[in-house]
Amino acid sequence: MRRKPQQLRSREMVDRLIDATGKVIVARGLEYATTNHIAEEAGVNIASLYHYFGNKEEMIEALQDRLTQDLLQTLVGHAAGYDLKALSMRDIAETSILFTLQSLRADPVFMELSRHWSRLSLQRSMAVIEQHLLQLCTDYFRQHFRTYPIEDMHIRLYVLLNGAMATVARHLCEGSPVIRDRELVTVLADMIVGVLEKGMIE
Amino acid sequence: MRRKPQQLRSREMVDRLIDATGKVIVARGLEYATTNHIAEEAGVNIASLYHYFGNKEEMIEALQDRLTQDLLQTLVGHAAGYDLKALSMRDIAETSILFTLQSLRADPVFMELSRHWSRLSLQRSMAVIEQHLLQLCTDYFRQHFRTYPIEDMHIRLYVLLNGAMATVARHLCEGSPVIRDRELVTVLADMIVGVLEKGMIE
Repeated sequence: MRRKPQQLRSREMVDRLIDATGKVIVARGLEYATTNHIAEEAGVNIASLYHYFGNKEEMIEALQDRLTQDLLQTLVGHAAGYDLKALSMRDIAETSILFTLQSLRADPVFMELSRHWSRLSLQRSMAVIEQHLLQLCTDYFRQHFRTYPIEDMHIRLYVLLNGAMATVARHLCEGSPVIRDRELVTVLADMIVGVLEKGMIE
Repeated sequence: MRRKPQQLRSREMVDRLIDATGKVIVARGLEYATTNHIAEEAGVNIASLYHYFGNKEEMIEALQDRLTQDLLQTLVGHAAGYDLKALSMRDIAETSILFTLQSLRADPVFMELSRHWSRLSLQRSMAVIEQHLLQLCTDYFRQHFRTYPIEDMHIRLYVLLNGAMATVARHLCEGSPVIRDRELVTVLADMIVGVLEKGMIE
């Protein structure tokens, strides 16, 4: 197959601009970052930037999409390392949530975006993450149906994924000075295990 | 005390403009409603409209705020009618969630806004509702501490309110053709009762 230098070059340019968007908002703050700053950081002229993006908002959206993809990859990689036979449902829930909290807190780009979450639309990212986790969880429970014989799994996973994601997002973005990560994780694990156990066929 | 006709008139005008915003978006759809349509519906000239609102987005925000207040009043009124001694925690949870779903579905303004939820910021409305429900629930559990001796109530309520609100909002806005209200309510009640019971001091 022949390579397509034009497409490859476009993609590299877009990647470089998204990298630069992340760096600039961390350095200057989301509200003070401009497309000029981003173009300068990327070493790209401003006309080229506007060839790929209509405005700053589109660049932030692309950055959110990339963060979502990165988080998913990290989570799936982390989950692949579990010894599922050795772990209880509670262990899996606690480990995954704690790992998610720590990964996101360690990412300065996410932390800067999270400062402005009330003005950003999170629904698209949430929908992408939900769809992937839903697939992951559905596969898991199909494989372990004998241990977890749950009939209405699709409803239980819908509630648990929406519920847990919203709480984690809220906790990371707005925070709550009186709630610690460890406490939140325990209650979320209670929620996940409780809802699943309640659905088991007797 | 002397009345303040100027202030009163302003408030009536703002109310009339918010009413008109609701009517126009239901009749024309959010994307096709203009401030001119709204001014015409309210019987107000466009300059007066711009005296109170900067643009259409501000009118939609004011409409969201009013919907939030209306929903809260309706919920609190509904809850006041409960015979709390005769109801289990599960009954209260199921009744409240089902009532919320039905109230919102019956409101054409909410349903039109919900079609566009991925572009509207819901965080402000959510925060207001959460704060009120948190107060309501905290008072309830303080009064019933003997029946429900839960130490880390603030964490459990934080998780449950965030989790339930997000799932209800998602279900109402995006819907899921395979999940029925009744099924969702059952699983949400499992979640609420399970998380509370797990927190009981033994």
